[in-house]
Amino acid sequence: MKLYDCSTAPSPRRVRIFAAEKGLELDLVQVDLANGEQYGEHFRVINPDCVVPVLELDDGTRISEVLAICYYLDEIKPEPSLFGTTPLERAETLMWNAKVEQQGLMSMMDAFRNVAKGLKGHALPGPDEFEQIPALAERGRRRVEIFFRRLDDRLSTTDFIAGGRYSIADISGLVLIDFAKWVKIPIPNDAGNLQRWYKAITARPSAKA
Amino acid sequence: MKLYDCSTAPSPRRVRIFAAEKGLELDLVQVDLANGEQYGEHFRVINPDCVVPVLELDDGTRISEVLAICYYLDEIKPEPSLFGTTPLERAETLMWNAKVEQQGLMSMMDAFRNVAKGLKGHALPGPDEFEQIPALAERGRRRVEIFFRRLDDRLSTTDFIAGGRYSIADISGLVLIDFAKWVKIPIPNDAGNLQRWYKAITARPSAKA
Repeated sequence: MKLYDCSTAPSPRRVRIFAAEKGLELDLVQVDLANGEQYGEHFRVINPDCVVPVLELDDGTRISEVLAICYYLDEIKPEPSLFGTTPLERAETLMWNAKVEQQGLMSMMDAFRNVAKGLKGHALPGPDEFEQIPALAERGRRRVEIFFRRLDDRLSTTDFIAGGRYSIADISGLVLIDFAKWVKIPIPNDAGNLQRWYKAITARPSAKA
Repeated sequence: MKLYDCSTAPSPRRVRIFAAEKGLELDLVQVDLANGEQYGEHFRVINPDCVVPVLELDDGTRISEVLAICYYLDEIKPEPSLFGTTPLERAETLMWNAKVEQQGLMSMMDAFRNVAKGLKGHALPGPDEFEQIPALAERGRRRVEIFFRRLDDRLSTTDFIAGGRYSIADISGLVLIDFAKWVKIPIPNDAGNLQRWYKAITARPSAKA
Protein backbone atom coordinates (compact mmCIF):
# COMPACT_ATOMS: atom_id res chain seq x y z
CA MET A 1 0.00 0.00 0.00
CA LYS A 2 1.09 3.51 -0.85
CA LEU A 3 0.54 6.59 1.30
CA TYR A 4 0.59 10.01 -0.31
CA ASP A 5 2.26 11.90 2.48
CA CYS A 6 3.99 15.15 3.40
CA SER A 7 6.61 14.70 6.11
CA THR A 8 5.99 18.15 7.64
CA ALA A 9 2.15 18.18 7.69
CA PRO A 10 0.03 17.18 10.71
CA SER A 11 -2.73 15.14 9.00
CA PRO A 12 -0.56 12.51 7.28
CA ARG A 13 1.51 12.21 10.46
CA ARG A 14 -1.59 10.83 12.18
CA VAL A 15 -1.66 7.98 9.66
CA ARG A 16 2.10 7.37 9.89
CA ILE A 17 1.88 7.03 13.69
CA PHE A 18 -1.18 4.79 13.36
CA ALA A 19 0.63 2.49 10.89
CA ALA A 20 3.71 2.39 13.13
CA GLU A 21 1.58 1.29 16.11
CA LYS A 22 0.01 -1.44 13.97
CA GLY A 23 3.35 -2.60 12.59
CA LEU A 24 2.19 -1.85 9.03
CA GLU A 25 4.66 -0.67 6.41
CA LEU A 26 3.40 1.86 3.90
CA ASP A 27 5.28 3.09 0.83
CA LEU A 28 5.47 6.82 1.48
CA VAL A 29 5.17 9.13 -1.53
CA GLN A 30 6.04 12.72 -0.66
CA VAL A 31 3.75 15.45 -2.02
CA ASP A 32 5.43 18.85 -2.00
CA LEU A 33 2.72 20.95 -0.32
CA ALA A 34 5.04 23.95 0.14
CA ASN A 35 5.40 24.26 -3.62
CA GLY A 36 1.77 23.57 -4.46
CA GLU A 37 2.16 20.07 -5.91
CA GLN A 38 -1.27 19.21 -4.43
CA TYR A 39 -2.95 21.67 -6.83
CA GLY A 40 -1.29 20.24 -9.93
CA GLU A 41 -3.12 18.14 -12.51
CA HIS A 42 -1.32 14.96 -11.48
CA PHE A 43 -2.37 15.09 -7.83
CA ARG A 44 -5.91 16.29 -8.56
CA VAL A 45 -6.58 12.91 -10.14
CA ILE A 46 -5.36 11.21 -6.96
CA ASN A 47 -7.48 13.45 -4.71
CA PRO A 48 -9.71 16.19 -6.15
CA ASP A 49 -9.77 17.73 -2.66
CA CYS A 50 -6.03 18.45 -3.08
CA VAL A 51 -5.04 17.24 0.37
CA VAL A 52 -2.91 14.49 1.90
CA PRO A 53 -3.01 11.82 3.26
CA VAL A 54 -4.37 9.46 0.60
CA LEU A 55 -4.00 5.69 0.94
CA GLU A 56 -3.68 3.81 -2.34
CA LEU A 57 -4.39 0.09 -2.26
CA ASP A 58 -2.57 -2.36 -4.51
CA ASP A 59 -5.57 -2.47 -6.88
CA GLY A 60 -5.46 1.33 -7.24
CA THR A 61 -8.44 2.13 -4.97
CA ARG A 62 -7.83 5.36 -3.09
CA ILE A 63 -9.06 6.35 0.36
CA SER A 64 -8.75 9.88 1.72
CA GLU A 65 -9.64 11.37 5.13
CA VAL A 66 -7.56 10.35 8.15
CA LEU A 67 -10.36 8.59 10.04
CA ALA A 68 -11.36 6.47 7.03
CA ILE A 69 -7.75 5.47 6.31
CA CYS A 70 -7.04 4.56 9.93
CA TYR A 71 -10.25 2.59 10.31
CA TYR A 72 -9.41 0.64 7.16
CA LEU A 73 -5.91 -0.16 8.46
CA ASP A 74 -7.43 -1.26 11.77
CA GLU A 75 -9.77 -3.65 9.98
CA ILE A 76 -7.18 -5.29 7.75
CA LYS A 77 -4.83 -5.83 10.72
CA PRO A 78 -7.06 -5.98 13.80
CA GLU A 79 -4.34 -6.52 16.46
CA PRO A 80 -3.76 -4.37 18.42
CA SER A 81 -6.99 -2.47 17.79
CA LEU A 82 -6.63 1.30 18.04
CA PHE A 83 -10.41 1.78 17.95
CA GLY A 84 -11.36 -0.60 20.77
CA THR A 85 -12.65 -4.16 20.85
CA THR A 86 -16.30 -3.77 21.92
CA PRO A 87 -19.13 -1.57 20.57
CA LEU A 88 -18.89 0.66 23.64
CA GLU A 89 -15.10 1.03 23.38
CA ARG A 90 -15.44 1.92 19.70
CA ALA A 91 -18.15 4.48 20.52
CA GLU A 92 -15.95 6.10 23.18
CA THR A 93 -12.99 6.15 20.81
CA LEU A 94 -14.95 7.72 17.95
CA MET A 95 -16.47 10.22 20.38
CA TRP A 96 -13.15 11.38 21.78
CA ASN A 97 -11.47 11.38 18.41
CA ALA A 98 -14.25 13.63 17.11
CA LYS A 99 -13.76 16.03 20.03
CA VAL A 100 -10.01 16.21 19.40
CA GLU A 101 -10.62 16.80 15.68
CA GLN A 102 -13.35 19.41 16.01
CA GLN A 103 -12.31 21.29 19.12
CA GLY A 104 -8.55 20.77 18.83
CA LEU A 105 -7.24 20.13 15.33
CA MET A 106 -9.76 22.34 13.50
CA SER A 107 -9.03 25.20 15.91
CA MET A 108 -5.31 24.71 15.40
CA MET A 109 -5.80 24.81 11.63
CA ASP A 110 -7.73 28.08 11.99
CA ALA A 111 -4.97 29.49 14.22
CA PHE A 112 -2.23 28.61 11.75
CA ARG A 113 -3.69 29.00 8.27
CA ASN A 114 -5.24 32.42 8.85
CA VAL A 115 -1.92 34.13 9.63
CA ALA A 116 0.81 32.07 7.91
CA LYS A 117 2.51 34.27 5.33
CA GLY A 118 2.85 31.47 2.80
CA LEU A 119 -0.88 30.70 2.91
CA LYS A 120 -2.38 34.00 1.73
CA GLY A 121 -5.40 33.09 -0.39
CA HIS A 122 -5.19 29.52 0.95
CA ALA A 123 -6.75 29.91 4.39
CA LEU A 124 -8.38 26.53 3.87
CA PRO A 125 -6.86 23.36 2.47
CA GLY A 126 -8.28 22.39 -0.91
CA PRO A 127 -8.44 23.73 -4.45
CA ASP A 128 -10.54 26.86 -3.79
CA GLU A 129 -9.07 30.19 -2.78
CA PHE A 130 -10.14 31.71 0.52
CA GLU A 131 -8.66 34.86 2.06
CA GLN A 132 -7.25 34.72 5.56
CA ILE A 133 -9.49 35.96 8.39
CA PRO A 134 -7.23 37.28 11.21
CA ALA A 135 -10.07 37.14 13.78
CA LEU A 136 -10.40 33.43 13.05
CA ALA A 137 -6.71 32.88 13.83
CA GLU A 138 -7.17 34.56 17.21
CA ARG A 139 -10.30 32.53 17.90
CA GLY A 140 -8.42 29.37 16.96
CA ARG A 141 -5.61 30.04 19.47
CA ARG A 142 -8.14 30.66 22.22
CA ARG A 143 -10.03 27.47 21.38
CA VAL A 144 -6.82 25.40 21.49
CA GLU A 145 -6.03 26.82 24.94
CA ILE A 146 -9.54 26.01 26.15
CA PHE A 147 -9.32 22.50 24.73
CA PHE A 148 -6.00 21.85 26.49
CA ARG A 149 -7.85 22.53 29.78
CA ARG A 150 -10.62 20.11 28.76
CA LEU A 151 -8.08 17.40 27.94
CA ASP A 152 -6.33 18.01 31.25
CA ASP A 153 -9.66 17.51 33.06
CA ARG A 154 -10.41 14.38 31.08
CA LEU A 155 -6.97 12.91 31.81
CA SER A 156 -7.46 13.41 35.55
CA THR A 157 -9.62 10.26 35.49
CA THR A 158 -8.20 8.16 32.63
CA ASP A 159 -4.74 7.08 31.44
CA PHE A 160 -5.58 7.71 27.78
CA ILE A 161 -7.92 10.12 26.02
CA ALA A 162 -10.60 7.56 25.10
CA GLY A 163 -10.31 5.61 28.38
CA GLY A 164 -8.07 2.85 29.67
CA ARG A 165 -6.35 2.00 26.41
CA TYR A 166 -4.19 3.74 23.79
CA SER A 167 -6.25 4.64 20.70
CA ILE A 168 -6.47 6.84 17.63
CA ALA A 169 -7.73 9.62 19.93
CA ASP A 170 -4.27 9.72 21.56
CA ILE A 171 -2.63 9.93 18.15
CA SER A 172 -4.88 12.85 17.20
CA GLY A 173 -4.07 14.50 20.55
CA LEU A 174 -0.32 14.04 20.13
CA VAL A 175 -0.35 15.57 16.65
CA LEU A 176 -2.46 18.47 17.94
CA ILE A 177 -0.03 19.22 20.78
CA ASP A 178 3.08 19.03 18.62
CA PHE A 179 1.47 21.31 16.02
CA ALA A 180 0.42 23.76 18.76
CA LYS A 181 3.91 23.72 20.28
CA TRP A 182 5.33 24.69 16.91
CA VAL A 183 3.14 27.83 16.78
CA LYS A 184 3.96 28.56 20.44
CA ILE A 185 0.85 27.34 22.21
CA PRO A 186 2.47 25.15 24.88
CA ILE A 187 0.76 22.81 27.34
CA PRO A 188 0.21 25.01 30.44
CA ASN A 189 2.68 24.24 33.25
CA ASP A 190 -0.14 23.59 35.69
CA ALA A 191 -1.91 21.11 33.37
CA GLY A 192 -0.25 18.18 35.12
CA ASN A 193 -2.46 15.42 33.74
CA LEU A 194 -1.93 16.54 30.17
CA GLN A 195 1.83 16.85 30.79
CA ARG A 196 1.96 13.31 32.22
CA TRP A 197 -0.02 11.91 29.28
CA TYR A 198 2.12 13.77 26.71
CA LYS A 199 5.32 12.39 28.24
CA ALA A 200 3.98 8.83 28.08
CA ILE A 201 2.71 9.18 24.50
CA THR A 202 5.90 10.75 23.15
CA ALA A 203 7.96 7.95 24.78
CA ARG A 204 6.33 5.42 22.41
CA PRO A 205 8.49 4.63 19.36
CA SER A 206 5.55 5.52 17.05
CA ALA A 207 5.77 9.19 18.08
CA LYS A 208 8.83 9.54 15.83
CA ALA A 209 6.81 8.60 12.72
CA MET B 1 -32.17 4.09 25.28
CA LYS B 2 -32.68 7.81 25.70
CA LEU B 3 -31.67 10.46 23.19
CA TYR B 4 -31.18 14.04 24.38
CA ASP B 5 -32.57 15.82 21.36
CA CYS B 6 -33.77 19.17 20.03
CA SER B 7 -36.44 18.81 17.38
CA THR B 8 -35.31 21.91 15.45
CA ALA B 9 -31.53 21.33 15.42
CA PRO B 10 -29.62 19.65 12.58
CA SER B 11 -27.18 17.41 14.55
CA PRO B 12 -29.71 15.39 16.55
CA ARG B 13 -31.84 15.03 13.41
CA ARG B 14 -29.02 12.98 11.91
CA VAL B 15 -29.37 10.49 14.76
CA ARG B 16 -33.19 10.46 14.55
CA ILE B 17 -33.06 9.63 10.84
CA PHE B 18 -30.39 7.00 11.46
CA ALA B 19 -32.50 5.32 14.17
CA ALA B 20 -35.58 5.42 11.93
CA GLU B 21 -33.70 3.66 9.13
CA LYS B 22 -32.55 1.00 11.58
CA GLY B 23 -36.00 0.54 13.07
CA LEU B 24 -34.73 1.52 16.52
CA GLU B 25 -36.95 3.39 18.96
CA LEU B 26 -35.28 5.98 21.16
CA ASP B 27 -36.91 7.85 24.05
CA LEU B 28 -36.52 11.46 22.96
CA VAL B 29 -35.81 14.04 25.65
CA GLN B 30 -36.12 17.60 24.35
CA VAL B 31 -33.43 20.08 25.38
CA ASP B 32 -34.55 23.68 24.93
CA LEU B 33 -31.57 25.10 23.03
CA ALA B 34 -33.38 28.35 22.20
CA ASN B 35 -33.66 29.18 25.89
CA GLY B 36 -30.17 28.01 26.85
CA GLU B 37 -31.10 24.82 28.70
CA GLN B 38 -27.85 23.27 27.37
CA TYR B 39 -25.79 25.70 29.47
CA GLY B 40 -27.63 24.93 32.70
CA GLU B 41 -26.11 22.91 35.52
CA HIS B 42 -28.41 19.96 34.87
CA PHE B 43 -27.37 19.46 31.25
CA ARG B 44 -23.68 20.18 31.85
CA VAL B 45 -23.54 16.95 33.84
CA ILE B 46 -25.05 15.09 30.88
CA ASN B 47 -22.63 16.67 28.39
CA PRO B 48 -19.98 19.19 29.53
CA ASP B 49 -19.71 20.26 25.86
CA CYS B 50 -23.30 21.61 26.17
CA VAL B 51 -24.49 20.15 22.86
CA VAL B 52 -27.05 17.60 21.67
CA PRO B 53 -27.36 14.81 20.65
CA VAL B 54 -26.37 12.60 23.58
CA LEU B 55 -27.33 8.93 23.70
CA GLU B 56 -27.91 7.54 27.19
CA LEU B 57 -27.79 3.75 27.57
CA ASP B 58 -29.96 1.92 30.07
CA ASP B 59 -26.98 1.63 32.47
CA GLY B 60 -26.50 5.41 32.36
CA THR B 61 -23.45 5.45 30.04
CA ARG B 62 -23.56 8.49 27.78
CA ILE B 63 -22.24 8.85 24.25
CA SER B 64 -21.99 12.19 22.47
CA GLU B 65 -20.90 13.10 18.91
CA VAL B 66 -23.15 12.06 16.02
CA LEU B 67 -20.68 9.67 14.38
CA ALA B 68 -20.00 7.80 17.63
CA ILE B 69 -23.71 7.47 18.43
CA CYS B 70 -24.61 6.26 14.95
CA TYR B 71 -21.75 3.77 14.84
CA TYR B 72 -22.84 2.38 18.18
CA LEU B 73 -26.44 1.98 16.97
CA ASP B 74 -25.15 0.27 13.83
CA GLU B 75 -23.20 -2.24 15.91
CA ILE B 76 -25.98 -3.16 18.30
CA LYS B 77 -28.41 -3.68 15.39
CA PRO B 78 -26.27 -4.53 12.37
CA GLU B 79 -29.06 -4.97 9.79
CA PRO B 80 -29.32 -3.00 7.56
CA SER B 81 -25.83 -1.58 7.99
CA LEU B 82 -25.60 2.14 7.28
CA PHE B 83 -21.79 2.04 7.36
CA GLY B 84 -21.24 -0.79 4.86
CA THR B 85 -20.54 -4.49 5.21
CA THR B 86 -16.88 -4.80 4.14
CA PRO B 87 -13.72 -2.93 5.25
CA LEU B 88 -13.65 -1.08 1.93
CA GLU B 89 -17.33 -0.09 2.10
CA ARG B 90 -16.81 1.17 5.63
CA ALA B 91 -13.75 3.16 4.55
CA GLU B 92 -15.68 4.76 1.69
CA THR B 93 -18.58 5.58 4.01
CA LEU B 94 -16.37 7.14 6.68
CA MET B 95 -14.50 9.06 3.96
CA TRP B 96 -17.61 10.55 2.41
CA ASN B 97 -19.25 11.23 5.74
CA ALA B 98 -16.12 13.15 6.79
CA LYS B 99 -16.26 15.21 3.59
CA VAL B 100 -19.94 16.07 4.16
CA GLU B 101 -19.20 16.99 7.77
CA GLN B 102 -16.09 19.08 7.17
CA GLN B 103 -16.86 20.71 3.84
CA GLY B 104 -20.65 20.84 4.16
CA LEU B 105 -22.02 20.83 7.70
CA MET B 106 -19.16 22.83 9.28
CA SER B 107 -19.47 25.45 6.53
CA MET B 108 -23.20 25.61 7.06
CA MET B 109 -22.66 26.09 10.79
CA ASP B 110 -20.25 28.95 10.05
CA ALA B 111 -22.78 30.51 7.65
CA PHE B 112 -25.60 30.37 10.19
CA ARG B 113 -24.07 30.95 13.60
CA ASN B 114 -21.98 33.98 12.62
CA VAL B 115 -25.00 36.09 11.62
CA ALA B 116 -28.00 34.71 13.55
CA LYS B 117 -29.30 37.46 15.83
CA GLY B 118 -30.07 35.07 18.68
CA LEU B 119 -26.50 33.71 18.70
CA LYS B 120 -24.50 36.84 19.48
CA GLY B 121 -21.64 35.72 21.73
CA HIS B 122 -22.42 32.10 20.82
CA ALA B 123 -20.86 31.82 17.38
CA LEU B 124 -19.77 28.31 18.31
CA PRO B 125 -21.76 25.62 20.07
CA GLY B 126 -20.46 24.85 23.56
CA PRO B 127 -20.07 26.56 26.91
CA ASP B 128 -17.51 29.21 25.91
CA GLU B 129 -18.45 32.60 24.47
CA PHE B 130 -17.19 33.52 21.03
CA GLU B 131 -18.16 36.65 19.12
CA GLN B 132 -19.61 36.32 15.64
CA ILE B 133 -17.22 36.84 12.70
CA PRO B 134 -19.28 38.13 9.73
CA ALA B 135 -16.53 37.25 7.22
CA LEU B 136 -16.77 33.66 8.38
CA ALA B 137 -20.50 33.60 7.64
CA GLU B 138 -19.81 34.76 4.08
CA ARG B 139 -17.05 32.19 3.68
CA GLY B 140 -19.40 29.51 4.96
CA ARG B 141 -22.07 30.32 2.37
CA ARG B 142 -19.51 30.19 -0.40
CA ARG B 143 -18.16 26.87 0.83
CA VAL B 144 -21.65 25.33 0.94
CA GLU B 145 -22.25 26.42 -2.67
CA ILE B 146 -18.92 24.92 -3.73
CA PHE B 147 -19.68 21.71 -1.89
CA PHE B 148 -23.06 21.36 -3.60
CA ARG B 149 -21.16 21.33 -6.92
CA ARG B 150 -18.79 18.65 -5.59
CA LEU B 151 -21.73 16.51 -4.48
CA ASP B 152 -23.39 16.97 -7.85
CA ASP B 153 -20.20 15.74 -9.57
CA ARG B 154 -19.94 12.80 -7.20
CA LEU B 155 -23.56 11.81 -7.79
CA SER B 156 -23.04 11.77 -11.55
CA THR B 157 -21.39 8.35 -11.10
CA THR B 158 -23.11 6.86 -8.03
CA ASP B 159 -26.67 6.50 -6.73
CA PHE B 160 -25.73 7.42 -3.19
CA ILE B 161 -23.01 9.62 -1.69
CA ALA B 162 -20.75 6.80 -0.44
CA GLY B 163 -21.39 4.55 -3.48
CA GLY B 164 -24.07 2.04 -4.44
CA ARG B 165 -25.85 1.86 -1.10
CA TYR B 166 -27.68 4.23 1.25
CA SER B 167 -25.47 5.17 4.24
CA ILE B 168 -24.87 7.65 7.01
CA ALA B 169 -23.23 9.90 4.42
CA ASP B 170 -26.65 10.34 2.75
CA ILE B 171 -28.20 11.22 6.10
CA SER B 172 -25.51 13.85 6.71
CA GLY B 173 -26.08 15.18 3.18
CA LEU B 174 -29.85 15.39 3.61
CA VAL B 175 -29.55 17.30 6.87
CA LEU B 176 -27.02 19.64 5.26
CA ILE B 177 -29.32 20.42 2.33
CA ASP B 178 -32.42 20.98 4.47
CA PHE B 179 -30.45 23.28 6.78
CA ALA B 180 -29.05 25.19 3.78
CA LYS B 181 -32.52 25.51 2.25
CA TRP B 182 -33.73 27.08 5.47
CA VAL B 183 -31.08 29.84 5.22
CA LYS B 184 -31.80 30.24 1.50
CA ILE B 185 -28.93 28.34 -0.08
CA PRO B 186 -30.89 26.11 -2.47
CA ILE B 187 -29.59 23.26 -4.62
CA PRO B 188 -28.74 24.97 -7.94
CA ASN B 189 -31.32 24.25 -10.67
CA ASP B 190 -28.67 22.88 -12.99
CA ALA B 191 -27.29 20.45 -10.38
CA GLY B 192 -29.41 17.63 -11.79
CA ASN B 193 -27.65 14.74 -10.05
CA LEU B 194 -27.96 16.35 -6.65
CA GLN B 195 -31.63 17.19 -7.34
CA ARG B 196 -32.32 13.55 -8.33
CA TRP B 197 -30.57 12.23 -5.23
CA TYR B 198 -32.36 14.71 -2.92
CA LYS B 199 -35.75 13.67 -4.31
CA ALA B 200 -34.98 9.99 -3.69
CA ILE B 201 -33.65 10.55 -0.17
CA THR B 202 -36.54 12.76 0.94
CA ALA B 203 -39.03 10.14 -0.34
CA ARG B 204 -37.79 7.69 2.32
CA PRO B 205 -40.02 7.63 5.44
CA SER B 206 -36.95 8.30 7.64
CA ALA B 207 -36.60 11.82 6.17
CA LYS B 208 -39.54 12.91 8.34
CA ALA B 209 -37.67 12.04 11.55
